[in-house]
Amino acid sequence: MLAGGVGGARLALGFYRTLEPADLSIVVNTGDDFEHLGLHISPDLDTVTYTLAGLANRENGWGVAGDSFEALAALGRLGAPSWFRLGDRDLATHLQRTALLSQGLRLTEATARICDALGVTAQVLPMTDDPLATKVVTNEGELDFQDYFVRRRCEPVVREIRFAGVETARPSAEVVAALEMADGIVIAPSNPFVSVEPILALPGLREIVVSKPAVAVSPIVGGQAIKGPAAKMLGELGLEVSPAGVAARYDGLIEGFVMDQQDEALAAGVRGMGLDVVVTQTIMRSDDERAALARECIELLRRAGA
Amino acid sequence: MLAGGVGGARLALGFYRTLEPADLSIVVNTGDDFEHLGLHISPDLDTVTYTLAGLANRENGWGVAGDSFEALAALGRLGAPSWFRLGDRDLATHLQRTALLSQGLRLTEATARICDALGVTAQVLPMTDDPLATKVVTNEGELDFQDYFVRRRCEPVVREIRFAGVETARPSAEVVAALEMADGIVIAPSNPFVSVEPILALPGLREIVVSKPAVAVSPIVGGQAIKGPAAKMLGELGLEVSPAGVAARYDGLIEGFVMDQQDEALAAGVRGMGLDVVVTQTIMRSDDERAALARECIELLRRAGA
Repeated sequence: MLAGGVGGARLALGFYRTLEPADLSIVVNTGDDFEHLGLHISPDLDTVTYTLAGLANRENGWGVAGDSFEALAALGRLGAPSWFRLGDRDLATHLQRTALLSQGLRLTEATARICDALGVTAQVLPMTDDPLATKVVTNEGELDFQDYFVRRRCEPVVREIRFAGVETARPSAEVVAALEMADGIVIAPSNPFVSVEPILALPGLREIVVSKPAVAVSPIVGGQAIKGPAAKMLGELGLEVSPAGVAARYDGLIEGFVMDQQDEALAAGVRGMGLDVVVTQTIMRSDDERAALARECIELLRRAGA
Repeated sequence: MLAGGVGGARLALGFYRTLEPADLSIVVNTGDDFEHLGLHISPDLDTVTYTLAGLANRENGWGVAGDSFEALAALGRLGAPSWFRLGDRDLATHLQRTALLSQGLRLTEATARICDALGVTAQVLPMTDDPLATKVVTNEGELDFQDYFVRRRCEPVVREIRFAGVETARPSAEVVAALEMADGIVIAPSNPFVSVEPILALPGLREIVVSKPAVAVSPIVGGQAIKGPAAKMLGELGLEVSPAGVAARYDGLIEGFVMDQQDEALAAGVRGMGLDVVVTQTIMRSDDERAALARECIELLRRAGA
């Protein structure tokens, strides 16, 4: 699976409960990673890891369920930036990751250690061990992703997405191996522009996806994104705010497409792009619904030759 | 005042409530500072700052009163070292200090920012902005101070104390200015070997103390240290485990000496060293007792010419 944060994590959990964990590798966007108070923060990796570990806050999708915010409140009193909502338990993950990286471990290795400690047995892989930072070019100028996403609450109008470091970043050997060994690839219902395309921007990855049976799940349902700014970005970038707009964005990469029953009227148009389309319930409110959607994806991948 | 952690902080609070805060500078040992999980931890600076800010945990003397330990518990689950008791609010101080240092501030400047934010109006000065690390040479070999103090609970037998970096460390300009401007200098009831002598080891500082009216308060009462391994160290280093042993250690530096009423029988011996001795209640159980001891020190300093 290629995944971003919340949507990717939810479908990843569906696969985690459906497949043997050893058969599941999740390649996670790290374009949102940033340094904050000297800590290396990997929001999407954490969301996927916490979700698979059963620790995720299910209400808002990020952070650790039941976390406290004592350190954040104290940071605020000390005049430190407190716009990024760091929970105390979540902070422990950032501290441990940063410590492991400073010991010389690659992000892939640090992530494996954290997953091990939390009992996550699927392979959670950062897309790269190199710096690759998503920049959002807006009507207010170019913003770092977290600045756009958290501090500016996705309010600026997006003109372009840019990946700083893409000329030198390489996918990790683990990512290349996992994708090359995969029977099929699922593009999670994540934001195409800022969650999936940073992964696809890494050299060689688009070609591997093209060469494999691949399906995508629409993150757009009823003209809205389930979570985050995907719908707003589609519109601001001049694309159709619909599953068809998402399918068009993945043109040439995928054979199958999963879209929500609310958008059934649009299915014929997507089929017209030459895609095998499943229309189903894609809003995942329970673990059963997550597993059911995973099974639909597997069935669709099988039809695509997986 | 030259101070270490808990004992120094308690008497510093007495002075803080007795003098105009602008008239009080506390030069604090940083020989115990260490890196832990990538954080710059300054235990003595924190103890002094928290105490003056009214935030200190009065029971154990370190950390923040009422602090929670969610991050520490989560770090333990992640397999990170959890021997150093990091509270969540305390962690915020280490994060902010580390962030300020990585922005290029000196430790003196970072400490001033933290004190400002916490409303501490006396001058809390790290003894140096340079690395100077107290090493404890023991029957188990040379140990880093925190390793000896926290992890090994002061159990190894001390043979020698060494200050790594002392050849190159310099006192900050603020420390030199504060001491040169001082009417008098108080050596807090801190551990002579690992709290006061790291300060005195900095070039020029011993000479300034010699040139000024100076008094010391015994950290040894009734053959015991109020807190920490001072008594054990005195014995292991072959010195007398008594106020007289401490006074002898400060020979040539001080004119006055404050010792506890429990040790009244030893006062004549200390006077025999040529010191002006006050025998009083030195165990500070309340803020009033802290202020009373500060007033005794001030009176003794006046008699020494301050």
